[in-house]
This record gives sequence, C-alpha cells and structure tokens, in this order.
Amino acid sequence: MRINDNFEKLPESYLFSEVARRLNEYKAAHPEADVVRMDIGDVTLPIAGCVVSAMHRAVEDMADATTFHGYGPEQGYSFLRDAIAAADYQSRGIGIDADEIFISDGAKSDLGNLGDIYSSDSIVAVADPGYPVYVDSAVMSGRGGDRLPDGRWSRIVYLECNAENGFRPAVPDVHADIVILCSPSNHTGAVMTREDLREWVDYALREKSLIIFDSAYEAFVRNPSLPRSIYEIEGAEKVAIEIRSFSKTAGFTGLRCGYTVVPKALTGTDASGREVSLGKLWNRRQCTKFNGAGYVVQRGAEALYSSEGRESVRNNIDYYLENAGIIRRSLSQAGYAVFGGEDSPYVWIKGKNGESSWQLFGDMLEKYNISCTPGVGFGVSGDGYIRLTGFNSRENTLKAMKRICDGREK
Amino acid sequence: MRINDNFEKLPESYLFSEVARRLNEYKAAHPEADVVRMDIGDVTLPIAGCVVSAMHRAVEDMADATTFHGYGPEQGYSFLRDAIAAADYQSRGIGIDADEIFISDGAKSDLGNLGDIYSSDSIVAVADPGYPVYVDSAVMSGRGGDRLPDGRWSRIVYLECNAENGFRPAVPDVHADIVILCSPSNHTGAVMTREDLREWVDYALREKSLIIFDSAYEAFVRNPSLPRSIYEIEGAEKVAIEIRSFSKTAGFTGLRCGYTVVPKALTGTDASGREVSLGKLWNRRQCTKFNGAGYVVQRGAEALYSSEGRESVRNNIDYYLENAGIIRRSLSQAGYAVFGGEDSPYVWIKGKNGESSWQLFGDMLEKYNISCTPGVGFGVSGDGYIRLTGFNSRENTLKAMKRICDGREK
Repeated sequence: MRINDNFEKLPESYLFSEVARRLNEYKAAHPEADVVRMDIGDVTLPIAGCVVSAMHRAVEDMADATTFHGYGPEQGYSFLRDAIAAADYQSRGIGIDADEIFISDGAKSDLGNLGDIYSSDSIVAVADPGYPVYVDSAVMSGRGGDRLPDGRWSRIVYLECNAENGFRPAVPDVHADIVILCSPSNHTGAVMTREDLREWVDYALREKSLIIFDSAYEAFVRNPSLPRSIYEIEGAEKVAIEIRSFSKTAGFTGLRCGYTVVPKALTGTDASGREVSLGKLWNRRQCTKFNGAGYVVQRGAEALYSSEGRESVRNNIDYYLENAGIIRRSLSQAGYAVFGGEDSPYVWIKGKNGESSWQLFGDMLEKYNISCTPGVGFGVSGDGYIRLTGFNSRENTLKAMKRICDGREK
Repeated sequence: MRINDNFEKLPESYLFSEVARRLNEYKAAHPEADVVRMDIGDVTLPIAGCVVSAMHRAVEDMADATTFHGYGPEQGYSFLRDAIAAADYQSRGIGIDADEIFISDGAKSDLGNLGDIYSSDSIVAVADPGYPVYVDSAVMSGRGGDRLPDGRWSRIVYLECNAENGFRPAVPDVHADIVILCSPSNHTGAVMTREDLREWVDYALREKSLIIFDSAYEAFVRNPSLPRSIYEIEGAEKVAIEIRSFSKTAGFTGLRCGYTVVPKALTGTDASGREVSLGKLWNRRQCTKFNGAGYVVQRGAEALYSSEGRESVRNNIDYYLENAGIIRRSLSQAGYAVFGGEDSPYVWIKGKNGESSWQLFGDMLEKYNISCTPGVGFGVSGDGYIRLTGFNSRENTLKAMKRICDGREK
C-alpha cells in the first residue's frame, strides 16, 4: 500500500523528544548532575481531593450493574457539559450553551483532529513561535506544502511574534482560511488583549476565516482587563472554535480530559458556496472516529466545578504563577530580558549575547544543570530565546533560580 | 473557510442514531411498552473487582505528589504494553513485542485515525455487511468516491458476505490497497478460519495491500481450531495491523481503552517506491495528535492480566456467549434461519418471508417489544437480516426470547 507521503516531509525528531535525547546524553555523561527540569510543560501538583473522591465514586459506579456506565455520549455527559456552559461561559455573560461543548480526551487530540472537517487545501496561519502540533498536523494533512531551507513550510502563513509586538500575533496582509491562535501563549507566555482579539475577529469576519482559539491556559489569566475566552468579543461565535483543557489548571495531564466549543452560529462553506454548520461536521467526525471520554475522568472533571474544586484550581494556579514570578524576577535580576510569566506559567527568555536557542539550552544545562526548551523548537522566530516553565515544584524552582542568581556554575 | 466537502456526501443519520430515533418514537407512542434492547452492542456486566481495586489504587497515586502521573507515553505505559505482548501474543507463540503495541482510548479511534497514515487515494475494501465506521471514515477522508443509488460508494470494494459463503469475506479479483477485516464479525457473528486468513495474507503479500484486522471480539473465540489473531498466520506481520479492545471482553465501553498492533516488519511504500515503516508513521501520528490513554484506565486494563482478571474476563464472556446461545436456540426454534452466536456475542437472523431489515425491525419492535439492529444498516448485503446481541442481562434475554418462542404479541 501507498503511505501518506506528507509524513516523510516532517523532520525526524519532535522538539520534546530531541530535548529528552540531549538531556539523556548529558545525564549519561554526568551521572552525578542534579538536573532541574524546567522544560516540558507537565504539572507536578497532585489531583485535588474533591476530584479524587469523585473518581473513587465513579469507579464504584462501574463496579455495580445497577450504576454501571457503558458507552457514553460521544459529545460527553450532560452533567459535565452543563457545568462547563454555566461556569465557564454563562456566569461570565457569554452565551454558550451545553450543546455547543464537546468533551474530549484532551486539547491535543482536538487540535489534531479538527483538520478532518476543513478542506484539505486550506491555508493555515500560525504564530511563530508556536506549538509544533499546529504545524505538524497541518503538514500531515497536506496543508504544509514544501519544507523550505529555514524549516518553514511553503503553504503556511507565519504570524511573526517578537519583542516589538509583545509576542502577540497581528493580522497579516494576506488571506488565511484557518488561523490558530493561542492565548495565553504556550511558549512565550504572551496574552492577547481584547483589542488584539477584536482585530482578529474582524479579520475572520472579513476574510471568512475560521479562528481556532487554543485557550488551554485561560485560567492563568488574573489581570481582569485581559480576555479569557474569544467569545468575550462580539461576533466571535460566528468565526471561532475555542479549545480548553483541564490538564494545566487541574493536573489532568495524566487523566486526559478537555473540551472544544463549536458555536451553533459557526459555519463554513461547501464547494457550491452553501453555508454548513461546523458543529454538525465536528459532531459527525467525533461520532464516527471517537467514543467519548471515559466516565470516570468526566466525573473527576465535573468535581472541578464544585466550590472545593474551584478553590483547588485557584490554589494550583496561584502556586504555578508564583513559580513563574520567581523565574521572572530571578532571570531579570541575572540580566536577561524576560517576557511572559504573568497571567501565564511560561517565561520566555532572550540570550544576553545573541546566542542561538540551542546554544542557550546547552549553556543552561552545562552551567546551571537546568533543562529548558529552546525557543527555536517553536519556530524560526523563536531562535535566540528559551522557555522556562513554572510547573516544577517550588523547591526545585527556587533551587534552580538560586543557581542562576548566584552565577553558580555546577 | 471551506469545509471538507466529503462530509456532505455522508447521509445524515448514523445507523445507531436512527435505531434510537425510531425506538424513542415508539416508546413515546407506547409509554407502557417494556422494550428489551437487543440492538446496540454495549455491555451490561460491571467491571471486575480486580480492575476496580487497581483503578482505586491508581486514583490514589494521582492524589499524592510523590506518586502522581502527569503526561504518559503516547504509546501507552510499559506495564500494560508488556503485559499484552506476553499474555496475548508471546504465550501463544506469536512473536509480537511490546514496542509494536500502541495503547489507545479504544478501537473506534484507531480505526478512524489509521486513515491518516495511508495515501488519500487508497482503494479500501470492506466486508458488506460491515461496521459503518469503516466506510464512513473512508468517505470522510475522500476515499469513498461518489454515493451510488443503492447506498454504496463508487471507490470502495465491497466483499459480499452471505449465507452461501458463511458471511466470511473472500478475496476479490480486484486490487485493494487497504482491506478491513473483522473477525469475529461485529454484525454477523461469523468467524474467519485459518484458511480464510491464509488466503487474505497471501492476497495482501501478492497485491502489496495492508490488512486492518479488527479483532475486538477475539476473546469470544472458544473453538480452538479458529484463529484469534491474524499473526497466527505466517507472514501476516508483513501485511497486517491488528486492533483490539477491552470494551467487550472486560466491560470497558465506558472506560475507554484498546490497543493496536503495528509490527516492525510492516511497511508501505512512498511515491518513490521506497519502503517505509508503518509503525514509525503511526507513532508519529499518535505523538502529534494524541496524548496517550489515561493512567487510571491503563492500570485498570493491566489488572485484566492478573489471574483474577483473566478469570473475570472468561466469566464475562461465558455469560454473554450463553446469552447468545439462548438467542440462537430460541430464534431457531421459532423457525428463523440463524447465523453467528457461537464464538461471538452476535446473532444474525434472516426474515422468514423475505422481509426487509427495517420491516423486521418494525415487526420485532411491535410484536415482541424487542429492539434489534437492522442488517441493512451494515450494508446493502445485510438487507433481509437483523442482528441481536448477547450483551443484555440473562433475565432480559430470557424474557425477550420467551416472547418470541411463545409467539407472544405484546
């Protein structure tokens, strides 16, 4: 059989695997090194008590024929969809209904699978730097075109993010069918303002584009003047899908649950120019290729909407934001230009002397035994930067930052 | 933006939703009716004690920072992959290694998503009748061609299954790139023999095809002369992917866990004729668009490989097979031609007087208050048949069969 040749266009190694490979190589050569991992965005705080109790109860439900749950709705259980619609949208004055919410096993699956519902020749726009999954899944589905010498792709529109524009992607002067925005950004930590989103919604209305708004980190936004949902912008329900996750807010990275909002007002056009509901397409895709998130994890996610659950989420985020603040202050004190880390768990750091990202990665590892993510892994415009995350423990964060502030070399 | 027009080619309603719609309509008109659902293939027995305990322990792991599990490997945890390789393959003399096993959130996801790795113009062959997901996901990805007046698709090769060939698909005299086989069949209950699979493996070796072997029901095979894995056939590791699930064997329909085997020897060819490992492509697909099955459910699945777990699986299957036997005997006694229901939870029944499937569906519902699945929902060749499943409780199965044997009309 013939393979999908687009896979061969992708360079062999994925950013995080390459970081892991270099780390393992270093550790093998220096078995005594106490490397603090501040690279991968995984969480460290355990699951909240109310979620644990809810999951135990749900496991018990499965142990008894009278309360057993078999196949659930592909779109997710009403108990969770209702809780999300009420707490995350309606209570904030946003008119999103439960039947516009699709529960899944996580944001990464939805980000990858959404490509099924739009035309294979769609022009995709992504922020650079950006989450590699956006580009890699576009390339796999044939929307990348050819790989250029600088590692970019010929058919993708790159929205350059740099210190000058505050790492917030601006509307381009070219057309894109699909625009993937992430705010707070999962690499630079930049948060788009209401005005930014207003411009993007206007662009999408004008260009008849679809915005995929990845707001996996919205719960980290504490500044009340910053938007947490794209639907805070009037008209966004006609042009935007929003993707959220319980991974970072509630420690669900190992449990797997997230959700995607596809408003009923959102349409695309078919070959004949007819308007078609994207919610119906996504529903059909999910009913055909997915069987719903598990019952136990959905009961766990539901518990996050109890008063105890909300408090635990707030405490988790306070903890990670304080870590990010420690990183910000320490790196700044050590003379680095520092971005993000406010309203976001991610801190984005520029080398002092124009070093490349991988040089900075090597320096951090060898001088301070700190592992970070090279910014260039998120795109060409990320070169010269590294990313540190606030997701490690307080103890490890303080230990790592002390090494930098003291100028300690291992 | 432009949608994927292939979605519009799909007829509006999906088989099981249409059954549900007609059922609801009937129940609304006859609120007193005690309808026994023998249509959808969902399980009714609760989760085994050892799985329940394992899941409770796993939930506790998540409650403590020292045992917390964040992102797991996209391919699944070694503890589960190792258990599967040892118990399901190596102990039966089949040389499948743990790194050829990819854990997922279920067979339906893998069946749908595998299409990502092969060429979009691949010719797909499916059994008719067959699981609608095979055809629908092929159509969504543009491999269907046009819908013909009889509901078939112009680019799909149909492998006709009928009473004459024992409902076991035979190799066609045309080429197909991708052949999807399901044994035991999830509709007719037919089980392919070693000789059948030998012919298919030879076909695939000769035609350079890929076989996707859906063996979600392999644990129901009790006849030792029948194969449970396609890898029992020499050379299959060069041409076949095997998909399995814990849904029906262990009641995991609401927990979501399955696995897909992609042997290292399995390759496809790219545009230049070069051989490419399909395992590498699938791994790349999963690492980009999936974040692994949840930790708690994987610990639950691991427990199925303990001695208590094996016994519970055997008991569950005994129970459902006995139900299927009761259905077989009862329908046969009532004068129907009956197929399947041995080595399979599904019983496939032909109308006595050449009625169409939907007529039979209506008759069963109105005369006996039994809901079944119309065979035509699985494909043109399924017309004139209905499917009953052994997944209801013993009590309900006996009650429903008594109505048929007594010729009771409600």
